[in-house]
Amino acid sequence: MKQLSKSNLHIALLHYPVLGKTGEIIASAITNLDLHDIARASTTYGVQSYQVVIPLDDQRRIAKDICNHWTSGYGSRSNPDRKKSFELINISSDLDAAKNHIIQTTGYSPQLIATTAQMIDGCLSYEKCRHLAYSEKPLLLIFGTAWGLSKDFIEQCDHVLEPIEPHREYNHLSVRSAVSIILDRLLGDFHNKKLDF
Amino acid sequence: MKQLSKSNLHIALLHYPVLGKTGEIIASAITNLDLHDIARASTTYGVQSYQVVIPLDDQRRIAKDICNHWTSGYGSRSNPDRKKSFELINISSDLDAAKNHIIQTTGYSPQLIATTAQMIDGCLSYEKCRHLAYSEKPLLLIFGTAWGLSKDFIEQCDHVLEPIEPHREYNHLSVRSAVSIILDRLLGDFHNKKLDF
Repeated sequence: MKQLSKSNLHIALLHYPVLGKTGEIIASAITNLDLHDIARASTTYGVQSYQVVIPLDDQRRIAKDICNHWTSGYGSRSNPDRKKSFELINISSDLDAAKNHIIQTTGYSPQLIATTAQMIDGCLSYEKCRHLAYSEKPLLLIFGTAWGLSKDFIEQCDHVLEPIEPHREYNHLSVRSAVSIILDRLLGDFHNKKLDF
Repeated sequence: MKQLSKSNLHIALLHYPVLGKTGEIIASAITNLDLHDIARASTTYGVQSYQVVIPLDDQRRIAKDICNHWTSGYGSRSNPDRKKSFELINISSDLDAAKNHIIQTTGYSPQLIATTAQMIDGCLSYEKCRHLAYSEKPLLLIFGTAWGLSKDFIEQCDHVLEPIEPHREYNHLSVRSAVSIILDRLLGDFHNKKLDF
């Protein structure tokens, strides 16, 4: 497959509706390195935007303060590489606002692809998702904080991406690791060379 | 290639000798999520040990306190999955002590494989490194904190692994992302299925 120079992949990190430790639905707090690590990986692999969705007002204000530090405050001058990656971030209170941001910049409503560590019947393979990521219309690949996206939310998405390593006994990657590995599988030059897509 | 059920891969995270922002050699401080994320990814992919090398006494004490919380303190009871991943961690003051820990558990001195974001002539491909990771003798794959391993240190290693995405304009992954992606490329079931090793 001849690949376009730019993917149409966008990423969202949801802080609601996600699962708590005992399976209840919660709104989670932000984690500073979720902003840094996922923005840096997204910039490295050519992701088009990183949508951070946080319904809690105080948590959203903290996230915006951190982003402002790196995009226009002291951090933007002390570390221009970090500034570039933070410029990918858009912070919203809910998923509709994140989708609207993508509609405004691309002209299309994105397909929604949920991620989960659980194997679900009919999930989308990495090969198929990679094809979609280089097609004309935007994809929004959605990750959950805490113990992951809620089952009801996953069922409302257009597709569910296959888990990273579903047959492992231990299956507890951080969301930062999961995003990094999935971006490499979907957009990595390594796989352009190796895989017959 | 028929793969052995267990790899012989060990990981080290060095806090010295690594580069500071302006290229000087520094001893870096610990980052809590370096312990968590790399231990979780290492456990997921079947890494044999995670060697955290910290020369600064106070920083090493902090790292040990964090590890004790998760392996024998309250954290070990509140989150047994996290306990399992932290049990992979061995904290040392220098690389020789980390190597001795591997010699004591395996009977062999490990081959040392440095990682860097820079392309270096004669670097080891992922395919060759994957073969070595499933051979009889242990490999110690070494990552640097801060701005990466020093040039002199890299030259003392047996091999240097090829960079993750050397042809990208933006090349600033966190060490947590870099470890996750490299473990997936070297040990992931995804690649067992796809690649003709």
